[in-house]
Amino acid sequence: MMETTGKHLIPSRAAKRAHYDSEALYPILDEALFCTISYAVDGRPFSIPTTFVRYEDKIYIHGSVGSHFIREIEKGIPVCITVLLADALVVAKSAFSHSVNYRSVVIFANAEKITDSETKYLSFKWLTEKVVPGSWDYLRPVTDKEMQKTTSLAFSLTEASAKIRTGMPNDEEEDKMLPIWSGLIPLETKRLPVIADESSVEIALPKHLE
Amino acid sequence: MMETTGKHLIPSRAAKRAHYDSEALYPILDEALFCTISYAVDGRPFSIPTTFVRYEDKIYIHGSVGSHFIREIEKGIPVCITVLLADALVVAKSAFSHSVNYRSVVIFANAEKITDSETKYLSFKWLTEKVVPGSWDYLRPVTDKEMQKTTSLAFSLTEASAKIRTGMPNDEEEDKMLPIWSGLIPLETKRLPVIADESSVEIALPKHLE
Repeated sequence: MMETTGKHLIPSRAAKRAHYDSEALYPILDEALFCTISYAVDGRPFSIPTTFVRYEDKIYIHGSVGSHFIREIEKGIPVCITVLLADALVVAKSAFSHSVNYRSVVIFANAEKITDSETKYLSFKWLTEKVVPGSWDYLRPVTDKEMQKTTSLAFSLTEASAKIRTGMPNDEEEDKMLPIWSGLIPLETKRLPVIADESSVEIALPKHLE
Repeated sequence: MMETTGKHLIPSRAAKRAHYDSEALYPILDEALFCTISYAVDGRPFSIPTTFVRYEDKIYIHGSVGSHFIREIEKGIPVCITVLLADALVVAKSAFSHSVNYRSVVIFANAEKITDSETKYLSFKWLTEKVVPGSWDYLRPVTDKEMQKTTSLAFSLTEASAKIRTGMPNDEEEDKMLPIWSGLIPLETKRLPVIADESSVEIALPKHLE
């Protein structure tokens, strides 16, 4: 039941859906705004959703230096990071054959604490530009104090794999002729028009937010 | 840094955002289609996204009896389950004050394997009806063989908490007068019009899918 070829350890009934190359991994990591990071303390699992950004062959997250979560994983303990993009509900002729079209990534890694201030600064920029492209130079610049209050952690993608399901339902052979509708319900996540804070109602909306 | 009042152990810098009542938990669990389940084996964390359904004070998941993931957690080892609904990107006047409006749930639990066939059958129905409301009676009925091939696991919500962020950016006092736009970028996930499988192009679309 495990993908045991190579160094990857991916629990999966669908190892045929696994991909390990950057061509599969990067588009998923660059589209998803959130990941879930899990870790274990004394054998007990903890997990937390957070924003992240990929830059080259690592992903980066940020957190308060005082955060319990950050203080645990910055020690370099093993973490498992998952990312999920759900593309469609796959509606089969039987409940059993229902599925989901998705693109997911699983990463096994250990946090690398970013101590180099240039890289740390850039990791803020990369994340901000991912969340709101074109905004970094428009914002009030980051201060040294803010840099000191924030921890930046990097995770290697060496032990990462993507799983992707696309296409129509895989109904059982004997079900295919049944007069029951089957197909896809596509899912879409999108950004709606912005809503100004009361401090900003008289401030022109910058181009990157139009 | 930890929420230590009561029995809950929620890593958080924002314990003020925590809610433990069903009025906070249930709407999030009923809207979200996916959760991420994490567990630890020999101190190493693993996590996997999956669909789930809440019924009364438990959530239920399903998986193949042969799935490595299912076989690990059906033992009753501790799991941590997270759910995230992202409602808006919170765009502040500084990158540091950027945030996300979200509704999340964290559950600490141990799997309870459903052996009662009536409850197991119902748990399939609950999940199917959550994913595609109104569809259960329309589909080809579940067979005994399918029941045998599938494991149904329940998780108590006794150790569950919700965290919710709403509202506008919390800019630093000295930033509030800056002529920099701040506000929200709402996020919306929706279902698009269905796409028929080739087996279904001449089958009338049932009312529940219109």
